[in-house]
Amino acid sequence: MPSFHPPERLLLGPGPSNVAPRVLAALARPTLGHLDPAFVSMMDELKELLRGAFLTKNALTVPVSAPGSAGMEACFVNLIEPGDTVIVCKNGVFGGRMRENVLRIGATPVMVEDDFGQPVDPAKVEAAILANPQAKALAFVHAETSTGALSDAESLCAMARAHGMLTIVDAVTSLGGVPLRVDDWGIDAIYSGSQKCLSCPPGLSPLSFSARAVETLKARKHPVQSWFLDLSLVMGYWEGAGARAYHHTAPVNMLYALHESLTALHEEGLEAAWARHAANHQRLRTGLEALGIEFLVPEAARLPQLNAVRIPTGVEDAPVRKRLLEQYGIEIGAGLGPLAGKVWRIGLMGTSSSPESVDRVLAALGEVLGR
Amino acid sequence: MPSFHPPERLLLGPGPSNVAPRVLAALARPTLGHLDPAFVSMMDELKELLRGAFLTKNALTVPVSAPGSAGMEACFVNLIEPGDTVIVCKNGVFGGRMRENVLRIGATPVMVEDDFGQPVDPAKVEAAILANPQAKALAFVHAETSTGALSDAESLCAMARAHGMLTIVDAVTSLGGVPLRVDDWGIDAIYSGSQKCLSCPPGLSPLSFSARAVETLKARKHPVQSWFLDLSLVMGYWEGAGARAYHHTAPVNMLYALHESLTALHEEGLEAAWARHAANHQRLRTGLEALGIEFLVPEAARLPQLNAVRIPTGVEDAPVRKRLLEQYGIEIGAGLGPLAGKVWRIGLMGTSSSPESVDRVLAALGEVLGR
Repeated sequence: MPSFHPPERLLLGPGPSNVAPRVLAALARPTLGHLDPAFVSMMDELKELLRGAFLTKNALTVPVSAPGSAGMEACFVNLIEPGDTVIVCKNGVFGGRMRENVLRIGATPVMVEDDFGQPVDPAKVEAAILANPQAKALAFVHAETSTGALSDAESLCAMARAHGMLTIVDAVTSLGGVPLRVDDWGIDAIYSGSQKCLSCPPGLSPLSFSARAVETLKARKHPVQSWFLDLSLVMGYWEGAGARAYHHTAPVNMLYALHESLTALHEEGLEAAWARHAANHQRLRTGLEALGIEFLVPEAARLPQLNAVRIPTGVEDAPVRKRLLEQYGIEIGAGLGPLAGKVWRIGLMGTSSSPESVDRVLAALGEVLGR
Repeated sequence: MPSFHPPERLLLGPGPSNVAPRVLAALARPTLGHLDPAFVSMMDELKELLRGAFLTKNALTVPVSAPGSAGMEACFVNLIEPGDTVIVCKNGVFGGRMRENVLRIGATPVMVEDDFGQPVDPAKVEAAILANPQAKALAFVHAETSTGALSDAESLCAMARAHGMLTIVDAVTSLGGVPLRVDDWGIDAIYSGSQKCLSCPPGLSPLSFSARAVETLKARKHPVQSWFLDLSLVMGYWEGAGARAYHHTAPVNMLYALHESLTALHEEGLEAAWARHAANHQRLRTGLEALGIEFLVPEAARLPQLNAVRIPTGVEDAPVRKRLLEQYGIEIGAGLGPLAGKVWRIGLMGTSSSPESVDRVLAALGEVLGR
């Protein structure tokens, strides 16, 4: 069987985004032992870089050794116990996945539903909080990758906090792409993905727990149902002044890559990265409007890094995406769940968020659609 | 913060082993989308390569998107339900971890214990099977990474099968290093790690389920407690003729690397790789005996790829390992659990299993010990 050589692609789907050569170079550096002092120093830098990206001082800020779905599960299984109630906002596919997580713990989800494409409605959340004062946590998706909608994380967290509830926030697509301030907004548990606006390959899930979340973890009555994701054990490897306790073998090379992609973000500056994502979104928007293509999400809630647009009437979904991929080497995303066949998702995340990307996809779409 | 540049190391610990340049090159190839047809073709090849390494025809043969500990958890949470009984053999650290997995499911472990450094005793297992005919599964570690002991997987699986029990086998350190025949031995669920005898970076856990295991999964009464590790959902992404259902984002670049390391194993030939591991173990053994260093494990049960040796009387553990690392660039492993401070673990796994590695570590040990 021959070695695999991937074709050249411009990745403008819902993630992964294109990985910069400097990050691929870091990924390919020689593997070290996961307890090597040189590697442990790198881990310490990585935690500091992650805190910078999350805008937090949280001690427990680490990358989970698996993709974003495992980061989500880590938040739920560490903070929620059987019998707890969790208010879960669903305005896309990933809110539905949060519900699954709550159910599999033996806890009760109280659902707050909004249409796919709409942000989470704070008024509905407030009503759910008032109706369920016993709820332990409020969980929602900051940037819904399935629909391109941005919810008001600051307001939602303030409400939860005012009622003594923890917050669990999905920042898989938001981290690095739009303003996100973990400490200022009082977020208790947050997870992200490496392959979106950080433009590291997929496989890691940056996570951060507030002091209040760590106290909740320490006060648990039941053991965490996942041994692999038990953060009280994971901390023994990621924290401490000297030797680290072995828990699982860290994904050494992937952590080199995350270190490098966060270093690149730090060099650019977080606010500059947000501004870049916003500017390229405007460039895309202007071009799409000229092509007569409409956005799914109301203007105020549009994610610059994930543009869900309605497939024009009379245009078939799959053939267009196939031509873009095969003829132009451009990947855009299909709709998920109830939006399958109805929208395309054009990602402008991390390295993929550039004027050149925008111009290439607009030119290709114009040709394919004959407009 | 500067980019991270790891120092040069010869990795002769319990894993990771040294990754070959061709595998690092594959790792650094441009990232593709996880639903790209070119990537899906690579996944199909990867499954076939994994079947070749496991010597199985099992349809459900995939890499779990996380390290070996997650592979272990995947086997337990998919096959075991609350209230089940599992016979768990413990002759090292990883048998203890299996027990934790069983407990966290709400199932009952029946422990069969052997001393650290000894293989699992089939007579004790048979007694446990006879005393617990209601047990659903027998779980054991084929190659105990914490002690260097090889257990007789073929006999243990035959016993379990004769009594209608499933088998869950830890092959983290055995796959690619010693004979392992999943179909011939009738293993039902097996998991490994990418970073041992396959010499891929850490972060993936190859897994295979027999048809009987898949039936057990399909007949479950309770949902799998982990959404991320629920193989009935994971299969929707890894199987099928055409489009794959999105479950989680696959760790794209790590899968390139695993594909390449399995291709290298296929080129060498599985039996040739086993023979190479055996020959380099003999070379190490001869040299260690000349230095007056003794093995922990009885000769018949020694793993060629993981040599646990007693730290000579009067020699301090940590300073020797520190000098090997800092002066010679050689990593060897410390003892784990009750063996901490008592043994060193010298790994000769995958790419690290070569006459040059053996000669380098013997020369360095001789100098450091002044022998």
